[in-house]
Amino acid sequence: MTQKHLLLIAHGSRRQASNDEVRQLAGRVGQLRGADIAAVEVAFLELAEPSIPEGLARCVAQGAQEIVVFPCFLAAGTHVVSDIPEAIEAFRAQHPEVRIRLTDHLGASAALPKAILEVATA
Amino acid sequence: MTQKHLLLIAHGSRRQASNDEVRQLAGRVGQLRGADIAAVEVAFLELAEPSIPEGLARCVAQGAQEIVVFPCFLAAGTHVVSDIPEAIEAFRAQHPEVRIRLTDHLGASAALPKAILEVATA
Repeated sequence: MTQKHLLLIAHGSRRQASNDEVRQLAGRVGQLRGADIAAVEVAFLELAEPSIPEGLARCVAQGAQEIVVFPCFLAAGTHVVSDIPEAIEAFRAQHPEVRIRLTDHLGASAALPKAILEVATA
Repeated sequence: MTQKHLLLIAHGSRRQASNDEVRQLAGRVGQLRGADIAAVEVAFLELAEPSIPEGLARCVAQGAQEIVVFPCFLAAGTHVVSDIPEAIEAFRAQHPEVRIRLTDHLGASAALPKAILEVATA
């Protein structure tokens, strides 16, 4: 079976506690993952590490043959439409042996409105 | 009964399609809302309209006596910790008759890891 890793991309913050919170979210996603996903990693667009190329390289170093990239963004702004695809394209050119698949972003989740209401009315 | 409105705060984008996507998300949340919430509105921290003060004022103009403010942010970065509370505080000073409650942000949702996996493995 192809070894598949999931890489979550978040914006990144000057506030380290915020970046740690995203790392913890990746940990929670990792605990819920099915047997088809070998590991869940996180990378940041800016202001925090690892960067997107570093995150992709980390997956490859761990043996990933396929990387599913998930943008943790509410809407398809410039980061989702341009910045993330460009970073992936640059990595692909250097690692043609790794399959990289960019998924929909968080805002596309059908479960999001309910999740928002649950927090908002808690 | 107190008339309560829910105001979603998103970052805002230079890309209008992205802001429209957030407005559509607010519409989906509005369709799911319970009878205790009179309306769901959206406001943007920057780059799009309405701004946070404009969004709060819109709720008040519609008759809101209580406004629940939900930050649509993945983690508690500077925007969640400082910018949004400061905007609310400034509005509160001018509208002491309106109750404004700031909730946890999106990243606090227990449903988020499952929502991420559903999109990522679709």
